[in-house]
Amino acid sequence: MRIGVDVGGTKVLAGVVDDAGRVLGVVRRDTPRPGATAREVEDVLVEAVIAAAASAGDAGLSGVASVGLAAAGFVDVERERVLFAPHLPWRGEPVRRSLTERLGVPVAMDNDANCAGLAEATYGAARGATSVLMITLGTGIGGAWLLRGEVIRGANGMAGEFGHMCVVPQGLSCPCGQRGCWEQYGSGTALTRLVSARLGDAAGAIGWSGPAETTSGPAITEAARRGDPAAVAAFESVGDWLGRGVANLVAALDPDLVVVGGGVSQAGELMLAPARSALARHVAGAGHRVLPRLVAAELGPQAGLIGAAVLALPPP
Amino acid sequence: MRIGVDVGGTKVLAGVVDDAGRVLGVVRRDTPRPGATAREVEDVLVEAVIAAAASAGDAGLSGVASVGLAAAGFVDVERERVLFAPHLPWRGEPVRRSLTERLGVPVAMDNDANCAGLAEATYGAARGATSVLMITLGTGIGGAWLLRGEVIRGANGMAGEFGHMCVVPQGLSCPCGQRGCWEQYGSGTALTRLVSARLGDAAGAIGWSGPAETTSGPAITEAARRGDPAAVAAFESVGDWLGRGVANLVAALDPDLVVVGGGVSQAGELMLAPARSALARHVAGAGHRVLPRLVAAELGPQAGLIGAAVLALPPP
Repeated sequence: MRIGVDVGGTKVLAGVVDDAGRVLGVVRRDTPRPGATAREVEDVLVEAVIAAAASAGDAGLSGVASVGLAAAGFVDVERERVLFAPHLPWRGEPVRRSLTERLGVPVAMDNDANCAGLAEATYGAARGATSVLMITLGTGIGGAWLLRGEVIRGANGMAGEFGHMCVVPQGLSCPCGQRGCWEQYGSGTALTRLVSARLGDAAGAIGWSGPAETTSGPAITEAARRGDPAAVAAFESVGDWLGRGVANLVAALDPDLVVVGGGVSQAGELMLAPARSALARHVAGAGHRVLPRLVAAELGPQAGLIGAAVLALPPP
Repeated sequence: MRIGVDVGGTKVLAGVVDDAGRVLGVVRRDTPRPGATAREVEDVLVEAVIAAAASAGDAGLSGVASVGLAAAGFVDVERERVLFAPHLPWRGEPVRRSLTERLGVPVAMDNDANCAGLAEATYGAARGATSVLMITLGTGIGGAWLLRGEVIRGANGMAGEFGHMCVVPQGLSCPCGQRGCWEQYGSGTALTRLVSARLGDAAGAIGWSGPAETTSGPAITEAARRGDPAAVAAFESVGDWLGRGVANLVAALDPDLVVVGGGVSQAGELMLAPARSALARHVAGAGHRVLPRLVAAELGPQAGLIGAAVLALPPP
């Protein structure tokens, strides 16, 4: 059996993935809190792998052929080390080798957005597509670019940082240190900021009907589905920026498919409809070219671990 | 022998290219004026090929193994047709087949920026690089992206339209119909606009020492080399925008090399120094990543025809 593990800033998901991409057993663990050591994070990963194998009926790891790790961070070009991870204690840590030694099975590793793209290309929305732009919408905008099923990782393993392309010169400050990054306008952070700003300005006047205590992505999605005007307007703005940014990437890469995944993509057409409209209006050659399809990801929150398991397939 | 032909809006260059990428004989013809038919343009191409062969000592085409065409326009994904060319009468024209029939030798075709990138990758500044961003600066910004020596053409053959990525929302109008396109800020057009605007405002006050009658790229370059402040300032602005746009592409693609070619690149460091500075300041992960080298193209105005000849190499 193959096991995929997805480690993010708040949770670890591990599961057995069969040859059809189905997740047979999945376990969830909390990511150790900030201040934990690299060793403590790896302890959780090892335990989660053993628990996932057990949930699929395997006591011990004798039936595990390979383990793949999807990591929320920068993975080096050799896929040996996590160079930097904002929410994890890894700084140049040789994570792949450590886990291989501790588990005694072959381990492969990649960035989480790359894994999600690989999963969608292998089992999900991007099956059969030749050049695929994967956009993952969460707090930020991550992404991957796949050509003929291969993730294009770049000279330093840092390709796909679409969220930090500048779309507004001297625009909003981004935690990355730059200004005007796409993810300040087209991500979950933007969604929350837009709703919060309107609430702060004139909570009563704008008719916000979402929970007063929260402007989380799911709460805003729920409010928009009920027709709340502030929530709908926020999705229209964020979707519009999503489409504008995708238009830039289409001019550069001319993909045949754009897949939008990540937590915020759960909002579906609330976000994708304005994104498609903006893409059609803003792309180079608008009206004179074939537009790529822009679709929601199919594999949901397990895309990362599924892709990690694919990563761990022995080469043919 | 292999012959490469580069057809642009004003001139046709044809030359014999040897196995080391040297151009042995080159002929130049005027592109037929607007209003000419597709057949008239093809007449000029056929005549130029015969003249190039003759200049290399071949009477007739018996010694010509292949002909490659670099076309200033959109070439379809099969590389059979020119879908659209702003300065040529081709609209969906099956140019490759027509020339093959008329010349009686194998003909290959691609977009001119793709050919220039291929030439630089094979014989020029990008030899040995794995992932190469080619930027061609002229009236607009063209480009190509090459991975392991292969031009990535995209689903519709339209990849590399970097000049029409939006860098300023609601910015300057572009002939493409959009606003804020990169080429309005980082190309020869921008250079001319900046100098002309300052001349119009206060010709005497700003110390413009270039020819009064012209603000052409070469005239501005010459003035900047003499230290003319208006010309130097224009290069600094255009170079800054060049670097900002390259920073966006580096975030997305993480190339190991950026090659800047096209007519405006003849200005060399006047443009490249501010571009490198802007790239280093604006790229995602600035200060924490390896930057790609940003260098001038090596093959000059013959890059297109050299790349066309490479294109025409029989597959190995």
